[in-house]
Amino acid sequence: MTEPGTARLSREEQVLERIERVRRRPRVRESHITLAHGAGGKATQTLVEALFVERFRNPALEALGDGAVLAVDGGRMAFTTDSFVVSPLFFPGGDIGDLAVNGTVNDLAMCGARPLYLSAGFILEEGFAVDDLRRIVASMAAAAERAGVAVVTGDTKVVERGKADGCYVTTAGVGVLDRDLELGAAAVRPGDAVLVSGPIGEHGVTIMLARGELEIEADLASDTAPLHGPVAALLDAVPGGVRVLRDATRGGVATVLNELARAAGAAVVVRESAVPVRPVVHGACELLGIDPLYVACEGRFVAVVDGDRADAALEALRAHPLGEDAAIVGRVEAEPAGMVLLETPIGGTRIIDMLVGDPLPRIC
Amino acid sequence: MTEPGTARLSREEQVLERIERVRRRPRVRESHITLAHGAGGKATQTLVEALFVERFRNPALEALGDGAVLAVDGGRMAFTTDSFVVSPLFFPGGDIGDLAVNGTVNDLAMCGARPLYLSAGFILEEGFAVDDLRRIVASMAAAAERAGVAVVTGDTKVVERGKADGCYVTTAGVGVLDRDLELGAAAVRPGDAVLVSGPIGEHGVTIMLARGELEIEADLASDTAPLHGPVAALLDAVPGGVRVLRDATRGGVATVLNELARAAGAAVVVRESAVPVRPVVHGACELLGIDPLYVACEGRFVAVVDGDRADAALEALRAHPLGEDAAIVGRVEAEPAGMVLLETPIGGTRIIDMLVGDPLPRIC
Repeated sequence: MTEPGTARLSREEQVLERIERVRRRPRVRESHITLAHGAGGKATQTLVEALFVERFRNPALEALGDGAVLAVDGGRMAFTTDSFVVSPLFFPGGDIGDLAVNGTVNDLAMCGARPLYLSAGFILEEGFAVDDLRRIVASMAAAAERAGVAVVTGDTKVVERGKADGCYVTTAGVGVLDRDLELGAAAVRPGDAVLVSGPIGEHGVTIMLARGELEIEADLASDTAPLHGPVAALLDAVPGGVRVLRDATRGGVATVLNELARAAGAAVVVRESAVPVRPVVHGACELLGIDPLYVACEGRFVAVVDGDRADAALEALRAHPLGEDAAIVGRVEAEPAGMVLLETPIGGTRIIDMLVGDPLPRIC
Repeated sequence: MTEPGTARLSREEQVLERIERVRRRPRVRESHITLAHGAGGKATQTLVEALFVERFRNPALEALGDGAVLAVDGGRMAFTTDSFVVSPLFFPGGDIGDLAVNGTVNDLAMCGARPLYLSAGFILEEGFAVDDLRRIVASMAAAAERAGVAVVTGDTKVVERGKADGCYVTTAGVGVLDRDLELGAAAVRPGDAVLVSGPIGEHGVTIMLARGELEIEADLASDTAPLHGPVAALLDAVPGGVRVLRDATRGGVATVLNELARAAGAAVVVRESAVPVRPVVHGACELLGIDPLYVACEGRFVAVVDGDRADAALEALRAHPLGEDAAIVGRVEAEPAGMVLLETPIGGTRIIDMLVGDPLPRIC
């Protein structure tokens, strides 16, 4: 069978092309799973592309969005899942329960969908306190109510002591696309503006502080929140002007921008001074030796919008309680394709790569 | 607000009714999670009803089917999830990968839905062999292809060594209801026939043998298989005649029948001699000291059908490769409501309760 696009190539060219394709194919070089494979950065991406996408191959999965957009019965729906293994289970501003609900609601929102229904799968460790489970479930129910979704189906498994860490939650969600949208990295073009919906890194730093790994106390809480509200405000304000939406979870804003730059074949240039970071997050990140751009948020998203309509987009976001500190942080340029550059306040420029390793394990 | 049905009760009657409702409300008496809470029997049911249903309250969840049936955009869809923690990960006849795909396909099939899309959430233990993950993913891909579904979205988390057991998989699935069906325990009535689609207990016994807990070797493999094919054959053969479908996983056929009897407010009478059990399963169950009726299948289902059309239903099932050993095993009677009775070959009758405790942990 002739593969599409190769019909007019000579046999030699076809062989060379095939070699090149194999060469470029992502490969997992490690023989065993490391924490980095779960960190959301480079190792995760390679694992996903080399193992999962390679085997499951289908257009919805290959789009590699926060969820899959599917044609069902004439309409379009979004479908997504996330597993949550955050440690500790309870932290300032939330717990694994509302984190799981908001996380799945947000993945649907990033597809441009109206979240409707959630499922919840629990993996519990023998000996886990029933009262803690009760608290998690109550928090899920409250988050679901806040987001206007219903948890309609679930499952519970129990493993022996020492085969889990209290409680893991996997949520999946479905939503419908009411709008005629084609969101995705493919729509991104030079001249577009890059926005973030609020101050970054608060969730990740809150978790690190809750673990007591830094000997500081700070008045800080997770940013976990359902984002379909500000997303709807944005989509209403600049119809047809939003290119792509991504929530900045594992790997943070830097990783999201790298994925977008790579997928769009364009450059993203970020002005460091424009990125909203609260002083306490900044301080904690300095102690941790990590750039806030790599720290997970659970209630912030990145939006790439038509550059000419960036101000209207910003205004719409800022008018929403969950976007009041939104900011235009950068722009899309043609070159250097696939890269993210940071303009520093002192006039320098440096490359911001994807997250490598796992400086902040089990953040969500 | 007056609650429906209470409008004509006196204030005193209303108070008494409310007290009675609270008294009947399921309560988790244990302070900590035990393996029994994950076994699919009585403890699981209490946990689900007392914690999850109580908090998440919505009609789709309260139906307590294998999945939720939902109205979306004028049509009807089914949505379901299951977490898989089976040990060992690889066993004769399958592995955690095809088990997870088939399990979710089957939950959709039991709703009368045509399975379409699956999600997969992986929780991996640091140090897990990448080749084992590759093998699991390959097995999922093959099972998805066999069942005609696509894995369209997923997530991967990694936890530290000793915080999981290699690999846990949570699948969720969506499907559409092409048929105008109202399946559910509410449709069950005296005179209905009870069928099983094939010999029971093979999956559970295979897992126990694979763990080496019995010092016997047997030519036995898991029955894991996608059941939407035989279900479609059944629904086509007796349109309007199928009351309810349930796959007999954790807790086995006995637990499914107890749930149905309770929900339908009817009795189920099973003829022990009519229940298909392979001799090797029978033998292993004797050694384990457990009734095959409580042992999980992953490729068999229970169908309650109109008693007058039981023969046509049986014929249709037997004509399908995954139902060739199907059997009519019992009937529904009015009394004693909520109970399952077993007629033994020697003319006796005994009560078959739900599964209590967890004789076979981590079977799926």
